[in-house]
Amino acid sequence: MSELRRDPITNEWIIITGTRDGQTPMDFLTVRISEREGFCPFCEGNEIQMKPEIQAIRKKDSAPNTPGWSVRVIPSRYPICERPGEAEKKSEGQFISYEKMATYGEHEIIVESPYHIICISDDVMTQRVYMKEVLWIAQERIKELKKDPKICSVLVFKNQGYDRRISLPHAHSQIIGLPIIPAKIEKELNGARHYYEEKKSCIFCDILKEEMSNKSRIVEENDNFLAFVPFAARFPFETHIYPKQHNSDFCGLASQQIPSLAKMLKSIMIKIVKLLDVPPMEWVLHTAPFRAENGKELGPVSDYYHWHIEILPHSQPVRGLEWGGGCFINPPTPEVAAEFLRKIKSFVSE
Amino acid sequence: MSELRRDPITNEWIIITGTRDGQTPMDFLTVRISEREGFCPFCEGNEIQMKPEIQAIRKKDSAPNTPGWSVRVIPSRYPICERPGEAEKKSEGQFISYEKMATYGEHEIIVESPYHIICISDDVMTQRVYMKEVLWIAQERIKELKKDPKICSVLVFKNQGYDRRISLPHAHSQIIGLPIIPAKIEKELNGARHYYEEKKSCIFCDILKEEMSNKSRIVEENDNFLAFVPFAARFPFETHIYPKQHNSDFCGLASQQIPSLAKMLKSIMIKIVKLLDVPPMEWVLHTAPFRAENGKELGPVSDYYHWHIEILPHSQPVRGLEWGGGCFINPPTPEVAAEFLRKIKSFVSE
Repeated sequence: MSELRRDPITNEWIIITGTRDGQTPMDFLTVRISEREGFCPFCEGNEIQMKPEIQAIRKKDSAPNTPGWSVRVIPSRYPICERPGEAEKKSEGQFISYEKMATYGEHEIIVESPYHIICISDDVMTQRVYMKEVLWIAQERIKELKKDPKICSVLVFKNQGYDRRISLPHAHSQIIGLPIIPAKIEKELNGARHYYEEKKSCIFCDILKEEMSNKSRIVEENDNFLAFVPFAARFPFETHIYPKQHNSDFCGLASQQIPSLAKMLKSIMIKIVKLLDVPPMEWVLHTAPFRAENGKELGPVSDYYHWHIEILPHSQPVRGLEWGGGCFINPPTPEVAAEFLRKIKSFVSE
Repeated sequence: MSELRRDPITNEWIIITGTRDGQTPMDFLTVRISEREGFCPFCEGNEIQMKPEIQAIRKKDSAPNTPGWSVRVIPSRYPICERPGEAEKKSEGQFISYEKMATYGEHEIIVESPYHIICISDDVMTQRVYMKEVLWIAQERIKELKKDPKICSVLVFKNQGYDRRISLPHAHSQIIGLPIIPAKIEKELNGARHYYEEKKSCIFCDILKEEMSNKSRIVEENDNFLAFVPFAARFPFETHIYPKQHNSDFCGLASQQIPSLAKMLKSIMIKIVKLLDVPPMEWVLHTAPFRAENGKELGPVSDYYHWHIEILPHSQPVRGLEWGGGCFINPPTPEVAAEFLRKIKSFVSE
């Protein structure tokens, strides 16, 4: 039984997915994905191998769970959270109150193409990773998850370039809706709220102004979005995409702007893949939580928060100083990293 | 020129070590350590290959930087921070104030044995990793660094089991003194201070009471120390060692207690190495900062903080949900992990 546990000192929530009887420590090291050689359950034609689809963009005359789709949302086979259930916090302990709760929530997979595309850079010419559709369907799913009063926040993210023994290689991203606010989002919310209280302005908007004026950390720019290496990037070639128009909620992004976001996201991914020779990497969408945990106050989140996408490549192992101290070491200056990224051609069309 | 930059949203300090002219992105991927085949600069007899030693435990009649030592502290060859210099915060930016400062500080290596021991588990019989001496000399170095009013905090840590292309394999740990408080320590301080303000008690002491009463997460116990898997562990088989006696400062640990701490730390390391087949891992000492950054108030840190050691194995890659959301997924429940660790024999003598 999966559960959320809160670190009593740092207040961060951790997900303990739990163990089955008979598991050994080596089971936590080894492969979780054991597909038949050459078989991919995400490919068109294999729909029946997975749980029934939740939503899909498909040809008018095609039936659910059959071929004829471009992007498909399905339940995760290894969900870290599940509905229905309870989202009640419980506490245990005699001398200290340890908080925990069942991992209520939703864990969905967005299959990004019916074709067996593995890396986005394999797709430069054919354009068969349907990024526009991925972003559009993510909006639809977020709107749906928001209706559940027990879900507080949602993360949409993609892992790429990891060992295929731990992740299916077919291009996909994930949506997770949780009854808590994840630590990184909580930290951003706190920082942005304090800034807003002091300066009466959105910190993300001020960063946008600074980056557009300074220019040295810009990677790409179009009418609606700015991609830049943040001033204090944690990872070499880390890049963030901010919408120029203030909005705390990704679902508030007008559908006409989705193509230019999709193009930029693809372009940055391809640049990083080329520059760092297919490193493990992610992109993660940060959008405002729907609601506070257990009735806590989020304040005027629509004023102080600003949705954005973070693209995080991992070219170097993280070790003691980072894990143990939370102090990240990043060799290239963000200005040098941005210059390298600007120079790489990505040739992405909308 | 290495510099510290503060993330304006999360307020975390990042270390940008900087790039040399002519470096390419692949230089951030590849090996930093390029030793002659079979040559180890940390081995006894090769002292002259390194910068002059800072401190050593050595035979009475032996001269510095010659053989005859058991544990030796030397300056890092690749320091992430350096003295002398300035530790002044500067800010830049027109629309937002980005804070940065030179990476003032000290980065030292503790060579843990004159013999070419690679993994602590290779040393079960011979006991030639001088852990007692490592902990004793760490105290000495911390006391020395504390005298520098520009250094706010110190981290002592060891990386083990990483690719030998990125880390010299000869057993060593590191000491870093910085003019800032690292993010993880800052987060602990904040949590512990709030708890203290509310309950008038040390949260670490209350956790100790709870763990000793509950018993399910205990890995090892002796008169002075408790090793346990924390209630909300981030990593499979993560283990923390707390001193039973309240003290915010590791240097306050009486020298008579060092042998039993050394024995426990070695024992836990060996258990994890055996259980997870030599995973990449670290141990990190968390001790109270010496002083607040730029005159900020730490409050009664000696009352609310409690030094401890965290042992962090990495058996699984960290991906989007962790990096992008700060939400860690840990399969084994801490209770199951502790049971596995209790059962493994480690045979360590003092």
